[in-house]
Amino acid sequence: MSKSIKLAILGLGTVGTGVINLINDNLGELKRRSGRDIIITEVGTRRQRDDIDASIIQNDDLMAIAASDNVDIVIEVIGGTTLAKDVIMHAIKHGKHVVTANKALLAEHGNEIFALAEANNVHVAYEAAVAGGIPIIKVMREALAANKVDWLAGIINGTGNFIMSEMRDTGRPFVDVLAEAQALGYAEADPTFDVEGIDAAHKLALLASIAFGIPLQFDKVYCEGITGITLQDVNYAEELGYRIKHVGFAVRRTNDKGKEGIELRVHPTLIPQNTLLANVNGVKNAVLVNSHPLGQTLYYGDGAGAGATASAVMADVMDLVRVLGSNDPSLTGQQGHHVPHLSFLPELLSDTPILRAEQMITGYYLRVHAYDNPGVLADITRILSDAGINIDAILQKPAHKVGQVPIIILTLPVIESQMNLAIAKIEKLDSVTDKVVRIRLDELA
Amino acid sequence: MSKSIKLAILGLGTVGTGVINLINDNLGELKRRSGRDIIITEVGTRRQRDDIDASIIQNDDLMAIAASDNVDIVIEVIGGTTLAKDVIMHAIKHGKHVVTANKALLAEHGNEIFALAEANNVHVAYEAAVAGGIPIIKVMREALAANKVDWLAGIINGTGNFIMSEMRDTGRPFVDVLAEAQALGYAEADPTFDVEGIDAAHKLALLASIAFGIPLQFDKVYCEGITGITLQDVNYAEELGYRIKHVGFAVRRTNDKGKEGIELRVHPTLIPQNTLLANVNGVKNAVLVNSHPLGQTLYYGDGAGAGATASAVMADVMDLVRVLGSNDPSLTGQQGHHVPHLSFLPELLSDTPILRAEQMITGYYLRVHAYDNPGVLADITRILSDAGINIDAILQKPAHKVGQVPIIILTLPVIESQMNLAIAKIEKLDSVTDKVVRIRLDELA
Repeated sequence: MSKSIKLAILGLGTVGTGVINLINDNLGELKRRSGRDIIITEVGTRRQRDDIDASIIQNDDLMAIAASDNVDIVIEVIGGTTLAKDVIMHAIKHGKHVVTANKALLAEHGNEIFALAEANNVHVAYEAAVAGGIPIIKVMREALAANKVDWLAGIINGTGNFIMSEMRDTGRPFVDVLAEAQALGYAEADPTFDVEGIDAAHKLALLASIAFGIPLQFDKVYCEGITGITLQDVNYAEELGYRIKHVGFAVRRTNDKGKEGIELRVHPTLIPQNTLLANVNGVKNAVLVNSHPLGQTLYYGDGAGAGATASAVMADVMDLVRVLGSNDPSLTGQQGHHVPHLSFLPELLSDTPILRAEQMITGYYLRVHAYDNPGVLADITRILSDAGINIDAILQKPAHKVGQVPIIILTLPVIESQMNLAIAKIEKLDSVTDKVVRIRLDELA
Repeated sequence: MSKSIKLAILGLGTVGTGVINLINDNLGELKRRSGRDIIITEVGTRRQRDDIDASIIQNDDLMAIAASDNVDIVIEVIGGTTLAKDVIMHAIKHGKHVVTANKALLAEHGNEIFALAEANNVHVAYEAAVAGGIPIIKVMREALAANKVDWLAGIINGTGNFIMSEMRDTGRPFVDVLAEAQALGYAEADPTFDVEGIDAAHKLALLASIAFGIPLQFDKVYCEGITGITLQDVNYAEELGYRIKHVGFAVRRTNDKGKEGIELRVHPTLIPQNTLLANVNGVKNAVLVNSHPLGQTLYYGDGAGAGATASAVMADVMDLVRVLGSNDPSLTGQQGHHVPHLSFLPELLSDTPILRAEQMITGYYLRVHAYDNPGVLADITRILSDAGINIDAILQKPAHKVGQVPIIILTLPVIESQMNLAIAKIEKLDSVTDKVVRIRLDELA
């Protein structure tokens, strides 16, 4: 064993503690795989902890740790986008490699952070930022490096997937299941980030950049949560052979003139019941990637939790130790050629535009409530047909209010602007009684 | 773009042609991700091909190509364990990095090949050797590098999985479906390697080494194929909530005295219907890995085919280009610290023994045929109970021969030697009419 690798862990919450436990549990495996001693030299924590090995320096001054000569790699697991950013920028300027699990920070400030890292010849590794323990960042950046990615579809928020799974399995409404998720610790007291899709949008922005070689553009992700999903729609979807999941999509589109655009969107989606993705249940995550020439591959596992996140954090550490190790004894500076932060070379990122919502193309599930008059179905299907929208299936259910029937329509993929126009016309029909409920649909084919 | 990377492709069959097509299709993506030109300079082919770009030298002398100054990386896709071995050893001695898809060669001669590569400071990369386009080698060697692997279970032979899927879906017997697989080009004229489990055993030997840090020990893999699986058993399994798949298992065991041993086995296995692995159908492959602290993760995709295999081959090339590139302008020699071939440092591989079949622990599906005498069930269950074998489920079916009934028994995990003794006793019962059919069972929990 040559030089020891010295780690600092900033933040001793669930993940930070998980990293310490992993190193304690698996030190033998780490050494056998890296040929190095890996030791934690400093931890950043606000209050002194007596359950930490006495050899580790505890310090509440994170900026001091980030600049310490006693540290090779800084692991940031404090979260948030303010102090975390300051500390990471400081560490980079002091020539430290950084490992972070902070999806919000990278999705919103990653372009700036990665540029500083390039300029300082250090790495900012972030496997734990997307899909927890599933190594989707490494897979996309390295394993699929010879592929052209056509699209990816991910269940990348465990809380949301737990809620959708439970609604279906137990027939309870959204609010009930959300309360259970909060009681189980899967959802925060303020669940906005999870149930409104913001957390998934952060992760999707990262996945899309490394899939297509575009700058991070979190602000352009179309984002729709699961708060409006009713049991009625969950059940109709099942009856038609689909399942409603909260899915993030990044899709490369080429228009008639050969111009490329990219769809970035997270929203509830009907997907076929017999796909693996539809059978990813509870808090589990999975990402399905369709690329050329590989075709479809799927990656599945725990998207959160101390063990899964620590696994991803330490995979990044092992990469730094193994690949940069001996060519660069100080573990800083001059490591030269490597895997670019966003998979593609910074100067070769593409300015392919992110499409506006109205330009996106998806199938649709529509639930229309109408008086059971003769001709209403003909009126609706005529409107869809006039808009060039192809119907894949229709289900007319018995009336549940006097004289009113729910009509369920599945459509083939259509440009959203066309669907908006058609729905506006349908809602103007005299026999239609309510706003049309619409949920996107994808065959994942 | 600095220096070009010069590739030689040895063998222009399905995979070699797939690599050429991939480079033609995705050259832009390759350059954007690596910052280099990647060019094929030489190909090894027995007969001159006129569909190959004229700038590429065609040569039937593979040894000359392996030693050519015009080549940085040698891609071996000729297959077999004789010429392929000679060529790879020759390339290594001439300081070339090697990328190979040759599972048989590595499983049988990998220890020798990797040792020569270490001595010559070059890499032999082999992502395509296991599970085709699924990046399971990179995942195990790098993404799970901080984990202790407890076990893995893989559907790693597409032909076998196609046959098992079709038998279940269409109710046709093994021989019929095998003939269809041969007509579709999924199975060879001589299907032995696939249906007897040898191909899966090759891949399992590789997976086990990088999971546990042990030398390659193909000769110690317990290997059972699918030729004996009947529709009757497929249907009984379904009725009990299971599905029969051909699965490769690598399992770390610790005995009462704390001594570790490893089970390496490929065999038909009942797995629960509701697991993702049970829903991997047709020629698809998947590997489920249970590791600490990550827990279960699953990797799914195409296990064979030109595109999938080319994707894996070129992922290895991209790794070599990106990671070794600039620290080592010649792309040979002195690349120093890196990911060890078998994930663990050669000098730190472990001599943990591979367990003999009699020492292995699995659940069992038993089908016993007996005369429908009073007391026969009591006799059988008594024998199992005396051997310390716990019964999980029993299904007694109506007689299909006069007076004879099939009795299906599922057991909890038991040491195989105990099961052997119990079955011998059951077969000696007067009322038992046939050999006991046994198939292993795993809850994947």
